Amino acid sequence: MKATGIVVEYNPFHNGHLYHARQSKIETGADVIIAVMSGQFLQRGEPAFADKWTRTEMALLNGIDIVIELPYVYATAQASDFAKGAIALLSAIGCESFCFGSEEGAIHPFLRTYELLNGQREQYEQKIHEAVQTGISYPKAMNRAYNALTGNSDGYADLTQPNNILGYHYIDEAKKMGSPMSPHTIQRIAANYHDPIDKGLTIASATGIRQAFFEEGSMKEIANYMPVPSLLSLQEFNRQYHAFGSWEQFYPMLRYSILKERPAQLKRFSEVTEGIENLIFEAAAKEHEFEGFIGRVKSKRFTRTRIQRMLTHIYTGFTWDQLRSFQTPSYLRLLGMSEKGKRYLNQQKKNMGLPLISRAANLTDPMGKLDIHASSMYLLGIGAKDLKKEFTSPPLYFG
Amino acid sequence: MKATGIVVEYNPFHNGHLYHARQSKIETGADVIIAVMSGQFLQRGEPAFADKWTRTEMALLNGIDIVIELPYVYATAQASDFAKGAIALLSAIGCESFCFGSEEGAIHPFLRTYELLNGQREQYEQKIHEAVQTGISYPKAMNRAYNALTGNSDGYADLTQPNNILGYHYIDEAKKMGSPMSPHTIQRIAANYHDPIDKGLTIASATGIRQAFFEEGSMKEIANYMPVPSLLSLQEFNRQYHAFGSWEQFYPMLRYSILKERPAQLKRFSEVTEGIENLIFEAAAKEHEFEGFIGRVKSKRFTRTRIQRMLTHIYTGFTWDQLRSFQTPSYLRLLGMSEKGKRYLNQQKKNMGLPLISRAANLTDPMGKLDIHASSMYLLGIGAKDLKKEFTSPPLYFG
Repeated sequence: MKATGIVVEYNPFHNGHLYHARQSKIETGADVIIAVMSGQFLQRGEPAFADKWTRTEMALLNGIDIVIELPYVYATAQASDFAKGAIALLSAIGCESFCFGSEEGAIHPFLRTYELLNGQREQYEQKIHEAVQTGISYPKAMNRAYNALTGNSDGYADLTQPNNILGYHYIDEAKKMGSPMSPHTIQRIAANYHDPIDKGLTIASATGIRQAFFEEGSMKEIANYMPVPSLLSLQEFNRQYHAFGSWEQFYPMLRYSILKERPAQLKRFSEVTEGIENLIFEAAAKEHEFEGFIGRVKSKRFTRTRIQRMLTHIYTGFTWDQLRSFQTPSYLRLLGMSEKGKRYLNQQKKNMGLPLISRAANLTDPMGKLDIHASSMYLLGIGAKDLKKEFTSPPLYFG
Repeated sequence: MKATGIVVEYNPFHNGHLYHARQSKIETGADVIIAVMSGQFLQRGEPAFADKWTRTEMALLNGIDIVIELPYVYATAQASDFAKGAIALLSAIGCESFCFGSEEGAIHPFLRTYELLNGQREQYEQKIHEAVQTGISYPKAMNRAYNALTGNSDGYADLTQPNNILGYHYIDEAKKMGSPMSPHTIQRIAANYHDPIDKGLTIASATGIRQAFFEEGSMKEIANYMPVPSLLSLQEFNRQYHAFGSWEQFYPMLRYSILKERPAQLKRFSEVTEGIENLIFEAAAKEHEFEGFIGRVKSKRFTRTRIQRMLTHIYTGFTWDQLRSFQTPSYLRLLGMSEKGKRYLNQQKKNMGLPLISRAANLTDPMGKLDIHASSMYLLGIGAKDLKKEFTSPPLYFG
């Protein structure tokens, strides 16, 4: 069986994701589709809208054959480390290809971009460094450096687009680790990342769908934009916890956590840099709602996403020391599989580059323990009483 | 004007406290009665039932002339340090006497106990140390040592009684610091410390009153046991926050805080000793309600009170390093005064041993900043949105 890999968050699963999954199989000619999925916290530095088991269920209900958890340390990292973890896992599980959604939609510009930047890596990094010194954000600095190298000419991927940036890093990491996986991309359609729901379309962005949940107070509105089984999974999650994951939901505990720590202690946490600990502390003292808080902290230099990643690490207690101690993924945590996925895993068993772990009790190394810890922190934030879910949830099997 | 001092928690103020205040003035012949009162966290290692402003109001409504806050570092300490802080403040504000409620009810046995233990301090401490080694709790060990010295003969204070223990420490600390204040005691009446409300009496213990609040879900029941103005103050507090302070109320945040810290980190916090950090961590992982949690942690050796003090420090983030940095009180924080209290303060102004501080903004040393910090932590636990109350609350003045 030929497998292709995709990297997802499914926050929550919607028609755009369904399209991506189907097209990826067509594009790559794969029999099996494997998703590496973030756990309880996401790349933009946010608690997931629904927990990883709910999102795994949504994936399996919509044609994904295997769901593997991207460990916390990669799932909450900036694009290059996020990509490093994801590509290493897809490679270890034996995918012949990987396929990402992009604004670009064709693979050749990514390869050309890779060749350009790889050939001039030092020069590129120097230019980024210079641009950061002028006080702009890292993503903007990257872009300025990139434009300087390409001379703004056609034929390269447009690295101002968030999915193009991730796509570039997938290719970069795959090349770096000498992976034999062939890269593919399909065009993202209809909704941009942050677009609010447009009632004329049946594909909406995940951000738009989440907003609609909170604004309308009802799930009916959403049914046009996501497969009905996904909607039911979300409803079940909400029925159980009377909440969805969001910083608004988690803010009372985040605020307590920030204020309990002295600013000097806040600096211990991963990504908290350059004197921003005082700003975070003062804003938490003043603001009792998340939007007011983040409004005081974010700036041109420190984007919302970057701040949110700091907050994620403050919230979970993840430190710089821990960050530095991790290099490459050490396990494949299986969250769920279809019948076909199960057959694939049986067939691949002996060829996998990392141990396949089905039960939390077997996550005994620091990276795995961190995933369990982050999961508990998420469950507390969502108001769960029972924190044993991590240990009592075997992989989902849809046979 | 002659002033006498009392040491109180008013958690909450009830008829027994009213009796203590009135009798203290009669017993000492004082014109003015000054209460040193714990702030937001109490000696048994608990959040106060109502905040310190509400409890100050109750005090002033019931004949107390001046309320001074006992700083967090003393208010949450074991008996000897609690007494050290309280006596130092009463001494600094110029009291000619102090008067404590005790089970004993007469001062002579306390003085005799003091002479005995002071004369054989080393022997006493050695005996305590030996008793602790046998695995019993510190209070029990103290008692065994004490009985060995007194030979169980009459005429000494019974140091198995909680108020007698505090009384002994007040005298011990006053003597140690060479205070000219004369010690007095009055007998506590009617209710023992932990007695549930007995409907036939008009004096009930504070513990009993708090229990009745939670159990009956109504305040009517309580009106027989506390002055009506105190009841109204409590109702106003509850109307504002829809909660009272208790570990049940604070447990979700305490639990999050414990689980966020690794056991190794829990050891940083004051009073967390001897490998108990693992027990605390495991119990928090398992239990979603406070009673279940404390049931797993307390033991013969580690009493509920001792554990609760650890929890208070974990909750507020108060470390061993901070504890070690404080020696004696550095200010008199004025929480409230009557008209007579105001005249007393004006008259004493130049003779006070410590600066009198009326506004939180003037609490600039580490001990004072800790009080403000602990107050914020309390307000978060109670569900307050606005944490500025510490800065926007001038001393209460009942003219």
